[in-house]
Amino acid sequence: MDNWLQKRALLTPKRMALSFKQQSWNFTELKQQVIKVCNHLVGSNIQKLQRVAILGNNTPQLYFTILALQQLGIEIVFINKNLALPEIHYQLQDAQISLLIYADEFQNKLQKLASVTLISLNNLMRAKTSDAADFIKSEFDLNQVTSIMYTSGTTGKPKGVLQTYRNHWSSAIGANLNLPVTAKDTWICAVPLFHISGFSIMMRSLIYGMSVRLYDHFDEESINHDLITGVGTIISVVPYMLKKLLSKKSEPYSSYFSYMLLGGGEIDIATLQACRDEQINVIQSYGMTETASQVVALNPIDAINKIGSVGKPLFPVSLKIADSIALNQVGQVLLKAANISPGYLNETNHNQFTSEGWFKTGDLGYLDSDGFLYLKSRLSELIISGGENIYPREVENVINQFPGIVESAVIGKQNSTWGSVPVAFIVTNKVINLQQLSDYLTSKMAKYKVPKQFILIDELPKTNNGKIRRKLLQSKI
Amino acid sequence: MDNWLQKRALLTPKRMALSFKQQSWNFTELKQQVIKVCNHLVGSNIQKLQRVAILGNNTPQLYFTILALQQLGIEIVFINKNLALPEIHYQLQDAQISLLIYADEFQNKLQKLASVTLISLNNLMRAKTSDAADFIKSEFDLNQVTSIMYTSGTTGKPKGVLQTYRNHWSSAIGANLNLPVTAKDTWICAVPLFHISGFSIMMRSLIYGMSVRLYDHFDEESINHDLITGVGTIISVVPYMLKKLLSKKSEPYSSYFSYMLLGGGEIDIATLQACRDEQINVIQSYGMTETASQVVALNPIDAINKIGSVGKPLFPVSLKIADSIALNQVGQVLLKAANISPGYLNETNHNQFTSEGWFKTGDLGYLDSDGFLYLKSRLSELIISGGENIYPREVENVINQFPGIVESAVIGKQNSTWGSVPVAFIVTNKVINLQQLSDYLTSKMAKYKVPKQFILIDELPKTNNGKIRRKLLQSKI
Repeated sequence: MDNWLQKRALLTPKRMALSFKQQSWNFTELKQQVIKVCNHLVGSNIQKLQRVAILGNNTPQLYFTILALQQLGIEIVFINKNLALPEIHYQLQDAQISLLIYADEFQNKLQKLASVTLISLNNLMRAKTSDAADFIKSEFDLNQVTSIMYTSGTTGKPKGVLQTYRNHWSSAIGANLNLPVTAKDTWICAVPLFHISGFSIMMRSLIYGMSVRLYDHFDEESINHDLITGVGTIISVVPYMLKKLLSKKSEPYSSYFSYMLLGGGEIDIATLQACRDEQINVIQSYGMTETASQVVALNPIDAINKIGSVGKPLFPVSLKIADSIALNQVGQVLLKAANISPGYLNETNHNQFTSEGWFKTGDLGYLDSDGFLYLKSRLSELIISGGENIYPREVENVINQFPGIVESAVIGKQNSTWGSVPVAFIVTNKVINLQQLSDYLTSKMAKYKVPKQFILIDELPKTNNGKIRRKLLQSKI
Repeated sequence: MDNWLQKRALLTPKRMALSFKQQSWNFTELKQQVIKVCNHLVGSNIQKLQRVAILGNNTPQLYFTILALQQLGIEIVFINKNLALPEIHYQLQDAQISLLIYADEFQNKLQKLASVTLISLNNLMRAKTSDAADFIKSEFDLNQVTSIMYTSGTTGKPKGVLQTYRNHWSSAIGANLNLPVTAKDTWICAVPLFHISGFSIMMRSLIYGMSVRLYDHFDEESINHDLITGVGTIISVVPYMLKKLLSKKSEPYSSYFSYMLLGGGEIDIATLQACRDEQINVIQSYGMTETASQVVALNPIDAINKIGSVGKPLFPVSLKIADSIALNQVGQVLLKAANISPGYLNETNHNQFTSEGWFKTGDLGYLDSDGFLYLKSRLSELIISGGENIYPREVENVINQFPGIVESAVIGKQNSTWGSVPVAFIVTNKVINLQQLSDYLTSKMAKYKVPKQFILIDELPKTNNGKIRRKLLQSKI
């Protein structure tokens, strides 16, 4: 397929592509900005690398640089800006990264990172330039990997999810067949570009010819203003964002407002009811890094009759329940779609990707007679806190390294702000200082992963085959 | 991918799928009607056939039957209802057809067709039934052929164009990325279902979840009424339809009216100007049976500045000019896209389908600096008359069989009603009766292919290597 950015600039050169605060760029200008970055990248010989890592806040410069790496056919490893240094180090090593491009505000954080070459965005734009034209891909090979995002999976060991152009293409097409985005729409992106929620908006922009309104942090006042004045018509939100927007909303949204795409966990019925009262269309969705964004969506028209459902699989997505012979019977959710990642980096034969093309989500659910999916629980016991995924075993592995800890179990506790926060049950063989444990964890991992509460327990309840009985623990908090 | 009809009925069961005169069917009802036909087909053991031919006017019963054949994974050979019996016979033989399903009104025409089993739509619906559930495909294999449409190509020998699910999928997606179709749109189909222009509307309906308003003939009064009242919002037209609609239009079209998709040949500037004055959006397009509908489109926003252009290639379509090293340089138009047919039936290595994946259109054109395509002339000298393709060599082959004819050349003559009509230059070695020649041709081919004028000439002007100099002939009429 033709290079998406080039094709989009050819098809709709004057249509607005991106805005940030008071600045904006049409697709011709976006392409120019991106080529400028390409010229700096080639000036530094970076086009020779197969893979480059990137770390930064949502800024136009990060946006241009991500697209520039893609133009040169370089795989982009997205680093979550909230990670602690040892976590970043692990991912860079795992992905065999030799160069990390970072936003200047992360300089201090990265000071001790010795294993890779570092270049800040500002320095990149001061580096010498060389004409990138010969290195820019005229075609995008749909089977090629363009982005890699780390997710911890069920084992607790972070894994790089490979995402191909085809994955992003299919994701964008499926979403568009459910709710068409038109030339009049502007998608507000206040979710991180290093998440699939944010990066998928960038890819949709190229594919649909749609404008993106970028935010460097979640600012409910400004975003509500955009939605009221019609500057933005669609927005991706996680539950806590939706609640904040709702609580601060003073006027009705404009008649151009289309919908909020809700991902990153369940939302309570009271909030949905409030959205209905305020005539805010909310598309609840289900998806993950491995599926390159949403694969199942619940449209507003169905939300009232299907409370608790995450919706129906998008047109290009096949969904079935493993070993299920009847409706309403719970089993693992299996997916087949061109959205689905070819696998994890350095793992050619991960068992989540079956030979028959069905991807095992690790989630339990059932289908009703109208084809709506209901998720019962997550096989993976994933904790979603403020839209961020926390994999209990990853946190437990770190806790267990602290002197005096015998074993631990991390589970999610309901929280009105974040949806869920991690709490840890710990078994100790000596007296430990919980503040020191917390400080230790904070030095090793992103703050959102650090348990907000530690509960001492004599021993962890387990099943016959040694698995922690997490549901039993859940009932104790 | 999941079976499109089944998936569509699951996703939007109550949305209107089809209307015809006063009747209408939502997607659930459409599926029920189609399954009813499937049960009759299975009752007659037709599911065992790989390929079935179909012939009829645009009626709901034909619509259901086409979808029913698709549900059972049977390849559908579409027979142009205007063909003469020998032409039908040739296509049925070429496609190794053992069964032709036909609309009852064609009974007389087909009486002498002895080589295949015939079943009329009415008789099919009276045949015994058997539960088709086990024979309905749960998935559509994108690489599988679902439809075959005959086109004569440049050699004059009709060839069956193989169209896969992927071809129709890519076509629908490309069109939708250019101009999104929403749940509110209804597409008026007054073009034949046996053409890609009509069948592609059926496929879009399933993929988009869009309603189709079907017409069994082009009725400009009723269609204008639909467009004025908002019953229809999009319509596919060929030039003569557009002109008729325009000439009979008494009131403005409704605010829901979206656009006319114009295919099947060029249109004059005066008509386009009139459309602008009447605020009728016209999407000019370029495509062919081999590309499963449009691949290049000129949007209204560009129409004024780019008169004479057919537009820009759709997002998923790559286009280049063969051997062209500069802009504005004329060469053969080459295409690469998932739209493009895998080839012709019984021809594994046709040279129109090159090994590097570029399809040779047989058309000459050039690209301007903004990426707009201009067609200069058709390498294939195709004549388009009222939206129907006429391949001169096919007509010449028949003329040359008439006693007294030495050779002939058929070219198109401009016509205000039909765009173009065929006229024939003939070289004779005895006195012939032109009325008898015309009657003979009418018995052998569709009426629209029969030359409207015969011009006697001493010898045909030819190039050094023996090719007819058609341009020179063109200047003589």
